[in-house]
Amino acid sequence: MSQKIIFTNDVNQAIEKTLDGVDYNKLFVLTDINTAHFVMPKFKDTLSKNGVIDITIKSGDVNKNLESLSHVWKQLGENGATRRSVLINLGGGMVTDLGGFAASTFKRGIRFINIPTTLLSAVDAAVGGKTGINFNGLKNEVGVFNEADTVIISTLPLDTLPIEEVKSGYAEMLKHGLLSSPEVFNKLLEYDFQDYNPELLLDLLEESVNVKREIVRQDPHENGLRRALNLGHTAGHAFESLAMKRMSPIPHGYAVAWGMIVELVLSHMILKFDSSVLHRYADYVYRNYGAFNITCEDYPELLSLMRHDKKINSGEINFSLLGSIGDVKINCITDEDDVKAALDIYRDLVHI
Amino acid sequence: MSQKIIFTNDVNQAIEKTLDGVDYNKLFVLTDINTAHFVMPKFKDTLSKNGVIDITIKSGDVNKNLESLSHVWKQLGENGATRRSVLINLGGGMVTDLGGFAASTFKRGIRFINIPTTLLSAVDAAVGGKTGINFNGLKNEVGVFNEADTVIISTLPLDTLPIEEVKSGYAEMLKHGLLSSPEVFNKLLEYDFQDYNPELLLDLLEESVNVKREIVRQDPHENGLRRALNLGHTAGHAFESLAMKRMSPIPHGYAVAWGMIVELVLSHMILKFDSSVLHRYADYVYRNYGAFNITCEDYPELLSLMRHDKKINSGEINFSLLGSIGDVKINCITDEDDVKAALDIYRDLVHI
Repeated sequence: MSQKIIFTNDVNQAIEKTLDGVDYNKLFVLTDINTAHFVMPKFKDTLSKNGVIDITIKSGDVNKNLESLSHVWKQLGENGATRRSVLINLGGGMVTDLGGFAASTFKRGIRFINIPTTLLSAVDAAVGGKTGINFNGLKNEVGVFNEADTVIISTLPLDTLPIEEVKSGYAEMLKHGLLSSPEVFNKLLEYDFQDYNPELLLDLLEESVNVKREIVRQDPHENGLRRALNLGHTAGHAFESLAMKRMSPIPHGYAVAWGMIVELVLSHMILKFDSSVLHRYADYVYRNYGAFNITCEDYPELLSLMRHDKKINSGEINFSLLGSIGDVKINCITDEDDVKAALDIYRDLVHI
Repeated sequence: MSQKIIFTNDVNQAIEKTLDGVDYNKLFVLTDINTAHFVMPKFKDTLSKNGVIDITIKSGDVNKNLESLSHVWKQLGENGATRRSVLINLGGGMVTDLGGFAASTFKRGIRFINIPTTLLSAVDAAVGGKTGINFNGLKNEVGVFNEADTVIISTLPLDTLPIEEVKSGYAEMLKHGLLSSPEVFNKLLEYDFQDYNPELLLDLLEESVNVKREIVRQDPHENGLRRALNLGHTAGHAFESLAMKRMSPIPHGYAVAWGMIVELVLSHMILKFDSSVLHRYADYVYRNYGAFNITCEDYPELLSLMRHDKKINSGEINFSLLGSIGDVKINCITDEDDVKAALDIYRDLVHI
């Protein structure tokens, strides 16, 4: 794995240093309209000094499509990009996914640098080599596995984000903590969103990215272990879909934070996961994320959604569960009564 | 390199055996309208027995575009392809290039099998991992390097091709002979197109593909040595473009066969390449390919075309030349007078 990840809150210096070490003929930066407006100004001087050419696409997952991809290919070609050119992707997961795919395929692959601007993309989309676009109504239907040459991770762009966005990304960090060790997990539960501390957050982010990095290293093409990263997502996706049907969508990370409560309950029931850790986790989530409201009338719908989660091969409900912090078991088959009991206990834990 | 290349004239058996060894859930075959009509019937029974789903695109390099690619992605998705599916690309370089790119990107990559149906694609496009499409008016503007799991190479589909097509592909084999050894090269010069011998041709093809395979193995991403494969192409592309401007296009392989005469003359002038080999080669080409007609009035145009060949970095004329058979020197800078002298001698050698 030759990918370089730099953790710093002096992003301008990191950009300078990275570009100094790269032999390129033309430099491009891809942003969406939002990052162009809110984040780009922080780095504009450094990038301009290096003769950067801007490419901008529309914001939002709905624009992570073939039309935006074609636009990037065209802009690269018409501005004289060659195999020796470099593309910087400055944005959230939508920009790093689409820009990574554009770079991986332009002239059969040019180098690219990711500068994620959301906590979620820093911790998730920017590391692990997944690139791609939505196509024909399906998420990430086409793409390639290919890692950025360099990823520059900072908490600097988070200043411009609403706190809900930060919390949403933080849920994935909590997941990595649970997949890692009690030390990492305990530190994460101490973080206080009321007392914004960029240096502490950057340290936590570094630990979290390294957890994911190690899992991806062991299973780059998602053949097995990488499914550990689905922790919280089977129940979480069901919550997300239910919220969508109720016409009041919830942020992805919130759904994962709540989904992990359900799945830790299942871990306790099936694999004897320590109930005191479960309670501490549920308490942290309740205090910082509130609760997703469900009643037992929602159970049939939720069970059906969990059964159809795209990451499941057959009709059974299949979870990645924990025996203890850092000890994950993928492909745990559960029966419906266990899941219903876990949903009951979830409701107790979040006081609904 | 895990790619498997099977040389056989019992293609049906090779397909059976290959599919037996692969764990897949759905099987697709991509053809263009021509190969669907002329070649597919030879293998239809075997493929149908394995429950193949057909995808067909329009023929011709002009259709190696984003529209055809989208069509393939859509057909894969709508017919339930998953990461465990397999795509067979049955066709010339246009089909293997586009189909290879579609497979490499659908759900971030599914496995594919190439069955090239022209000599050129067998010897060139099907091996080496170059996939892609034309985009925004530029050839192979987007794509990836990714090898087929298996390539099944035979001379069987050549029965349905005009002899000019076969000769065109054979020129690339002659090139590989020159890049390899006197033994390989001498055998190639003994082949008689009047006396069609599929088994002998298959043997020659195997040797030729192995020459390319070895070069690609040493330089998969075209950083240096792979430019050896440009032998004959700098002068050849200039002939091809001139013919296009004259509104009477010539087959690519013919242009390369003639271009190699020019470049072997230069090799003799600059690197003391053996003139008797040059004469034997030029004689073989003249007898089988005839001559491309030029006068000294075409020289300025040809020089300008060679200078702008896309594989050249600067304004100089840069060739891959030979010190002897198998001893290639890339990046040989020449001056214009040498090239003019080489064009004079080319005209002598092909009696114009």
